[in-house]
Amino acid sequence: MKIIIVGATGTIGKHITAALEKDHEVIKAGSKSGDIQVDISKPESIEKFFEQTGKFDALVSATGSAHFGPLATMKDADFRKGIDSKLMGQINLVLIGQHYVNPKGSFTLTSGILSDDPIVLGANLSAVNGAINGFVTSAAVELENDVRINAVSPGVFEESPEYFPYFPGHIPVAMDKVTRAYIKSVLGFGTGQVIKVY
Amino acid sequence: MKIIIVGATGTIGKHITAALEKDHEVIKAGSKSGDIQVDISKPESIEKFFEQTGKFDALVSATGSAHFGPLATMKDADFRKGIDSKLMGQINLVLIGQHYVNPKGSFTLTSGILSDDPIVLGANLSAVNGAINGFVTSAAVELENDVRINAVSPGVFEESPEYFPYFPGHIPVAMDKVTRAYIKSVLGFGTGQVIKVY
Repeated sequence: MKIIIVGATGTIGKHITAALEKDHEVIKAGSKSGDIQVDISKPESIEKFFEQTGKFDALVSATGSAHFGPLATMKDADFRKGIDSKLMGQINLVLIGQHYVNPKGSFTLTSGILSDDPIVLGANLSAVNGAINGFVTSAAVELENDVRINAVSPGVFEESPEYFPYFPGHIPVAMDKVTRAYIKSVLGFGTGQVIKVY
Repeated sequence: MKIIIVGATGTIGKHITAALEKDHEVIKAGSKSGDIQVDISKPESIEKFFEQTGKFDALVSATGSAHFGPLATMKDADFRKGIDSKLMGQINLVLIGQHYVNPKGSFTLTSGILSDDPIVLGANLSAVNGAINGFVTSAAVELENDVRINAVSPGVFEESPEYFPYFPGHIPVAMDKVTRAYIKSVLGFGTGQVIKVY
């Protein structure tokens, strides 16, 4: 299977890559690293990216940034950071990628726990994650040729202790457990699912 | 209570207005109609709007448009219609309005059934509605001075038979039931809630 991993060198991306590259052809993509570079905040960059990758069987997106800061001083421009990167970046990977994915292929996007279980400073991520979850639910009913789409919604990573102070009382999730959620989406059979890992 | 209703002359807005204006000072707002005009897709217009309304006790947003069309031909620009109007329009009403709302005041936004129960052509709305739901969940933990925020998530309106063909098997919801959800948010006590009416 030819699998594209966008964000392949990130905290979770490197685990997904390690788990899949033993048995599959993996194309590692990143904004600055990997086999091919792509700036997901720019549709033109995504178009060019897929022209380089060609047809594929699965795309995993484990990437996208957002604004993290207090609601009281948040402005339209702050909020659009998450809209342009983690939200529209991932959605454009699907809107453009749907024309390159092989029949029975799949898309796996990344949302996160904050849509359901909020923290202070996280309003932008809560909205973006909720949007990703809503999108995969809906896109699943329209994708043709048996193409599937799911989102993985992880809690705070065990490997990211720098974030623990912002997640009081949250139980960090093991990287192995998060990785398995992506594997389930790529090699499994579900579609329109939000696979929660928390 | 001084209550601003954005989208006051819309399908649901007119019912909310009728229910609240008996006992409260209601400011009707709309893009072209009402007491004061506001273009929610432009933060500058929202700023100017609140300078005109001054301090208020409750804001109800029953407005915002999105793109309705097939996923197969959907482009970034299509998707951004819902992002700029129904999503960022409503979020900017809160980000800017938080500096004008009185203590113990409230915001009530509108999402919709498509985040959970998708239909063909509805991917943009599914994402936008999911984002609104995520946002209110999160904003509720940060708003100060006992200010509350909720979303009303209605199904297809009984008064909108033109949409029935797009919602096969959906049970249209009575306008009275939808109106009561907004009343519950404005005059009730909950915060961070998604009040589902379907």
